[in-house]
Amino acid sequence: MNDAVSIATAIREGQVSAVDVTKNALGRIAARDHELNCFTAVIAEKALADAARVDDEVAQGKNPGVLAGVPFAVKNLFDIAGLTTLAGSKINAENPAVTQDATAVAKLKQAGAVLVGALNMDEYAYGFVTENSHYGATHNPHDLQRVAGGSSGGSAAAVAAGLVPLTLGSDTNGSIRVPAALCGVFGLKPTYGRLSRAGVALFSSSFDHIGPFARSVQDIATVFDVLQGEDDRDPICTKRLPDLCLPQLNQDISGIKIAIADGYFLKGAAPEALAAVQQVADALHVTEYVTIPEAHCARAAAFVITASEGANLHLDKLRSRPQDFDPATRDRFLAGALIPSHWYLQAQRFRKWYRDRVREIFQNVDVILAPTTPISAPLIGQQTMILDGEEILVRPHLGLFTQPLSFIGLPVLSIPILRPDALPLGVQLIAAPYNEALILRVAAVLEQQLVIRNS
Amino acid sequence: MNDAVSIATAIREGQVSAVDVTKNALGRIAARDHELNCFTAVIAEKALADAARVDDEVAQGKNPGVLAGVPFAVKNLFDIAGLTTLAGSKINAENPAVTQDATAVAKLKQAGAVLVGALNMDEYAYGFVTENSHYGATHNPHDLQRVAGGSSGGSAAAVAAGLVPLTLGSDTNGSIRVPAALCGVFGLKPTYGRLSRAGVALFSSSFDHIGPFARSVQDIATVFDVLQGEDDRDPICTKRLPDLCLPQLNQDISGIKIAIADGYFLKGAAPEALAAVQQVADALHVTEYVTIPEAHCARAAAFVITASEGANLHLDKLRSRPQDFDPATRDRFLAGALIPSHWYLQAQRFRKWYRDRVREIFQNVDVILAPTTPISAPLIGQQTMILDGEEILVRPHLGLFTQPLSFIGLPVLSIPILRPDALPLGVQLIAAPYNEALILRVAAVLEQQLVIRNS
Repeated sequence: MNDAVSIATAIREGQVSAVDVTKNALGRIAARDHELNCFTAVIAEKALADAARVDDEVAQGKNPGVLAGVPFAVKNLFDIAGLTTLAGSKINAENPAVTQDATAVAKLKQAGAVLVGALNMDEYAYGFVTENSHYGATHNPHDLQRVAGGSSGGSAAAVAAGLVPLTLGSDTNGSIRVPAALCGVFGLKPTYGRLSRAGVALFSSSFDHIGPFARSVQDIATVFDVLQGEDDRDPICTKRLPDLCLPQLNQDISGIKIAIADGYFLKGAAPEALAAVQQVADALHVTEYVTIPEAHCARAAAFVITASEGANLHLDKLRSRPQDFDPATRDRFLAGALIPSHWYLQAQRFRKWYRDRVREIFQNVDVILAPTTPISAPLIGQQTMILDGEEILVRPHLGLFTQPLSFIGLPVLSIPILRPDALPLGVQLIAAPYNEALILRVAAVLEQQLVIRNS
Repeated sequence: MNDAVSIATAIREGQVSAVDVTKNALGRIAARDHELNCFTAVIAEKALADAARVDDEVAQGKNPGVLAGVPFAVKNLFDIAGLTTLAGSKINAENPAVTQDATAVAKLKQAGAVLVGALNMDEYAYGFVTENSHYGATHNPHDLQRVAGGSSGGSAAAVAAGLVPLTLGSDTNGSIRVPAALCGVFGLKPTYGRLSRAGVALFSSSFDHIGPFARSVQDIATVFDVLQGEDDRDPICTKRLPDLCLPQLNQDISGIKIAIADGYFLKGAAPEALAAVQQVADALHVTEYVTIPEAHCARAAAFVITASEGANLHLDKLRSRPQDFDPATRDRFLAGALIPSHWYLQAQRFRKWYRDRVREIFQNVDVILAPTTPISAPLIGQQTMILDGEEILVRPHLGLFTQPLSFIGLPVLSIPILRPDALPLGVQLIAAPYNEALILRVAAVLEQQLVIRNS
């Protein structure tokens, strides 16, 4: 399958029709999603009508936008007018249909993209595996017995399987980056507050980000540019002017200082995850190291805050109908509700300290490399894994390397390392807040050298 | 005793010397403080040297400032260079002396005021009575068997007894207003963030305010104007330009819309507290009422947040040496440490809702009247009181009417209602954020009509 920008170009140039592209996407979903389980809703009729409108505009000589006729889908915590926003939950399925698209959905539509459906996720975005007890597990397209990662598992798998070239997900502790890595696609978690979250079901407000999945750096940059800009509907959304990344993609990167995160980020990973980082470093001729201090505390603090805030958000339902939660989610929320306030406050105090320390690091380095996940995709149902000779739980540890970064809202792109005869892995490119353009420029260079495209 | 502005004028005009004024203040402290117990430190030598410098400047024809030679003292949680900042605690007495004055202390000194000492308070500012188990109770000058209120009890009593004309205190849930009312002096809790807290031991950062005690509205306005302005040492301190209140004091108040807080603020108060509010309303010809919604929830939420944040701040010492805390403080901190995080978070969520509702009220009214305390000063050691026919604990309920206002940082002045043959009471004048000038203009009118000055 082609990438989103190529599809849009072909449609705008009249080489293919948007209706045909949409029909093909719907056909692939019909053919493959019964085994992948990426989609929780497919809106075929509406999608074909939207595609026909794009074709009309092309026929009239108008420009339907940079994403003209590109089929896309979104994690089912984004509002889609006419659908109920599930957020992976059985309880939320009782809510009425919403009447307005999430801002991000509306912006992609305005750019010509065609929404075809909603995607599976961990309940209330609280998980790294997308083994949802209500809506089933999403299967990894590289090995159907394995997880897609989570919580945006449907978003990553749908792109990896070529069902659609473009999806949106959300990331609180790693929920974009972990499934992007395990499925072998690009996943961008932008700077905290940079993209509007209006119309997105929140999990832990001071951690929640939205971002795109795609199969090329150019697609990620294109979508990111479309989504930038302030939004009256989201008071958290930054008032900065957009810094368009697409025009910067081909700039020389020789002046960008890049280093490998050492210490915490070199421990507790399988050898192949460290090899992936080394492969990226070699391609960029990077030999420097940098230490992000107290990353293990950052992860612990991220756990404490998200468990507390998530529990508070769902407390009424946890009290009145706990049996209707996914057991894996419920038990962690209940534990979160019982966390003493002084843990929560200590975590918030640490967060300020840590943010200042990490800011200092970025005075000497521009982009930091780290593994995305410690291992490649585990089996569906797999409870434990061996790391450093120790048997540890899979679910909480998939976010080992992602949590300390989202904790302070840094922009991170997970780039796919596709390996012959092995499962994909991901490497994180990390920058200071608002430096997405730097990351994407480095990723564009790497893409030429490293990434093996799905055919 | 004269008020601060009169003293400064007399000193600048050479009618009295600053050294004599300071000697007199030190003499009054020596004569009376053994029974009042306002001071925990008196710095006579330094004060006399500072006063001599003021006299030198006057002799040289210079202007030492609007508070030239005015003796003042501060609650012992303000840093005073050369002293250990006690914050009412035995543990903190082991700290080294600090090397820099709190910003507020430095600003008053720059305006010519002469610091004579540090004042008693509840341990870590956590109380409404100033019955400190380490440093003793502060006695109410109107009846030595009664409390001065707290936590800034020393600050209120020192002004009420005429030991000094001017003091500073801090207010988290009512710690300026409650003792001001019980001692019969003016106490201003400004808008949250308006005055620098640099060099002040915090209790619960998002609630803590500093402010002045004095015997006239003019003195309060003068000190408030001196203290305004941003401060690099305090990141919370507002960047607004000062809005000087003193020049506005004599403006006509006929255009100011004033109303009495009903509902919560008319329940649970002794008849004389309600009579005091009525007396103020009558003097201003106010007949309108306004409802501050869910004030009881605001008070509960204020309790939860301050207990949690205070406990977090002192957790190490609560663990390692609980026996060195004031028992009244310790037990509440320990309870605070065990509050579940979801209570804390719910309280913070409510706070946002409540702030928005109260903002709406201020679209239709400028100044709101409410009692400061439900009763006049209770006896030292008194555990319970009868309100609405019910026996309730004294200590937590003295802040009944102050907590729901500081909770969202509104500026409030407690004005003294001095009653013949009875203990004083206070009435709160409440405004929208940054409207201190409105409050002080109304207070200046009331002062002419109502307040019986101490002779």
